[in-house]
Amino acid sequence: MTVSNELPASGAWRPGDEPGRRQFFTFATDRRFALDSGATLSDVVIAYETWGRLDADASNAVLLCHAWTGDSHAAGPAGRGHSQPGWWDDTVGPGLPIDTDKYFVVCANVLGGCQGSTGPASPHPIDGRPYGSRFPVVTIRDMVRAQVRLADHLGIERWMSVVGGSMGGMQALEWAVMYPRRVGSIVPIATCMQATAQQIAWGAIGRRAIGLDPKWRGGDYYDAAAGDGPTEGLAIARMVAQVTFRSDNVFTDRFGRDLSDKATIGDTFGMWQQFEVERYLEHHGHKIAVRFDANSYLAIGKAMDLHDVARGRGSLERAMARVAAPTLTVGIWSDMLYPSYQQRQLHEILLASGVDSRYVEIDSPHGHDAFLINGDQLAEPLEKMLAQASKSNS
Amino acid sequence: MTVSNELPASGAWRPGDEPGRRQFFTFATDRRFALDSGATLSDVVIAYETWGRLDADASNAVLLCHAWTGDSHAAGPAGRGHSQPGWWDDTVGPGLPIDTDKYFVVCANVLGGCQGSTGPASPHPIDGRPYGSRFPVVTIRDMVRAQVRLADHLGIERWMSVVGGSMGGMQALEWAVMYPRRVGSIVPIATCMQATAQQIAWGAIGRRAIGLDPKWRGGDYYDAAAGDGPTEGLAIARMVAQVTFRSDNVFTDRFGRDLSDKATIGDTFGMWQQFEVERYLEHHGHKIAVRFDANSYLAIGKAMDLHDVARGRGSLERAMARVAAPTLTVGIWSDMLYPSYQQRQLHEILLASGVDSRYVEIDSPHGHDAFLINGDQLAEPLEKMLAQASKSNS
Repeated sequence: MTVSNELPASGAWRPGDEPGRRQFFTFATDRRFALDSGATLSDVVIAYETWGRLDADASNAVLLCHAWTGDSHAAGPAGRGHSQPGWWDDTVGPGLPIDTDKYFVVCANVLGGCQGSTGPASPHPIDGRPYGSRFPVVTIRDMVRAQVRLADHLGIERWMSVVGGSMGGMQALEWAVMYPRRVGSIVPIATCMQATAQQIAWGAIGRRAIGLDPKWRGGDYYDAAAGDGPTEGLAIARMVAQVTFRSDNVFTDRFGRDLSDKATIGDTFGMWQQFEVERYLEHHGHKIAVRFDANSYLAIGKAMDLHDVARGRGSLERAMARVAAPTLTVGIWSDMLYPSYQQRQLHEILLASGVDSRYVEIDSPHGHDAFLINGDQLAEPLEKMLAQASKSNS
Repeated sequence: MTVSNELPASGAWRPGDEPGRRQFFTFATDRRFALDSGATLSDVVIAYETWGRLDADASNAVLLCHAWTGDSHAAGPAGRGHSQPGWWDDTVGPGLPIDTDKYFVVCANVLGGCQGSTGPASPHPIDGRPYGSRFPVVTIRDMVRAQVRLADHLGIERWMSVVGGSMGGMQALEWAVMYPRRVGSIVPIATCMQATAQQIAWGAIGRRAIGLDPKWRGGDYYDAAAGDGPTEGLAIARMVAQVTFRSDNVFTDRFGRDLSDKATIGDTFGMWQQFEVERYLEHHGHKIAVRFDANSYLAIGKAMDLHDVARGRGSLERAMARVAAPTLTVGIWSDMLYPSYQQRQLHEILLASGVDSRYVEIDSPHGHDAFLINGDQLAEPLEKMLAQASKSNS
């Protein structure tokens, strides 16, 4: 077990990345870290950031779990090593709903990621070359098991709360199911107990788009000239996701049927002439291709498709009956990707098994991404939940 | 102007196609057919089928307009020349809601299509080689203008009704706006007055997937070995569409989280291991690649993105004020692609301008494709509408 403040080679998928605020924790250097798939990993690096101070009895720790293309940088400005400001910058900080004056907040890049944690671009311990196509499929449970090692390392026996949206919520759920004694509360947001066929369908389409890109090279593109990876395939995959992250009505308000500024005036009728919404999707597609590794996108997407708290546990009810932690579940009425019926189901199954469960619905037109956009509506229920968890955890 | 019962070379995108029930009408052999884009086409072929008999005063003619990958084969079995049974086989026929004992029913493959009408795979009149990348962008209005030529040829001055779902509904609307005196009634189903940003987004993603396929070759792939066209890109484009054509709940009922039969037992954890829903999407993706031309898919998709009854007409209200025909608009509550608010808007705008307008909503969980699946619910309002139109048209 080693700790370092330097970016280890194994943590960087793109040469030139800086550690920024990240710290790095390495485990399984001698023995192997067993995955759900049966494969094992060794020399696993987890990149993480912390805010605030852990109190004497380690009872004020909050774990934030990020979504698909998020990373450990939940709060703080963009800068060296952090291409973007924190993904929850209006929610995490001094005096904010997740108050870093009161709580010790931890956020780790997931296993399989590309922002410092071990993922497909990390060097294989045997030959030092990137895993590429050799990187095993990982699951949400594997991600959580890696976070358990990190918690042990940080001296946190029990999280006051585990909080996350989308894939982050899947991790929060698995924490509560796998380690009921190690979580004081959970806040799953815009997430589900099992990926549905439609969610898998969206994921599968993105997978195929990446696979179609000749520059993907079966997953072993790291030797290619810089920037010569499967950027178009990844961009298309991201575009599919981007539409499902937002909503019809907000797209209409924002883009309508406007043609892109780049469009030649008068040339409405070119096959590749862009509407403004296409330019927007292209922008997001290119942005992801610059900041994110296509193989990590595949790995994490597959983990979400495999997400099923019932797997190997008899039934959904039996799996969820393991949850003991008070739960605040948050839905978003306009979410087309994780429709709010999924969060209501989660709430109801917890209520039925006697858990102290509360459900709140965000009234936002922004769709799935409202959990990142409408922090204002999350503030009050989140503060309350954490205050309650703080009391019962000390 | 020529008519032929033989499949002309210009009408077949795949060698070996048979005319089946199709008839072929060629126009603009001397002069040019002007398109919205400013381009012109000559020697335009329209493939069509008819059912029933035109009465003496040509007052019982119903035009059916097909959707994206449909064609003229609205009714009748699969067989030589028709790879699939009629797309509305339970709705069009003797004694059926669109009763071919009473009405003369016409359905034409759209301009830009690949089932007999002039499209990207047709020979360019100058060199006889497929248009490919030279095929101009066409619009819904261009499709309707070609149908006007067909109507003239068939001696139909005024359709008793123009009926269509999805893109077919766009054509019905344009008929009513462009040629108010030539339509006795219209039945637009699961369609819209203007493509929204989200609809354009889905279309654009499919476009990019086809463009990413190296076998698309910029649109000029017809010389490639048979079957060596952009099948994977087209399959991905179709998968995107297929998800939007159906619904979350029906996918859940039908596929859940089952793994594909093809999956290796126990190997849940392969990156390319398929869930059942993926196998289903792949099936539909491969099916379209066999029966449909990728360039036609692009051409027709673009026409839908460009669909806007308001274009060049001042405003939506002013455009729709041209409609005089009694209208039965049909929505589907579970339609995520053309949500029913769009059909209610259409109904309301017609009511406001004094049109005899009726709105019916199909109560089906099947999503957009319910217009092809739930003929049972369409039967009564459709029969009524046609009976009324029949009375006022004679």
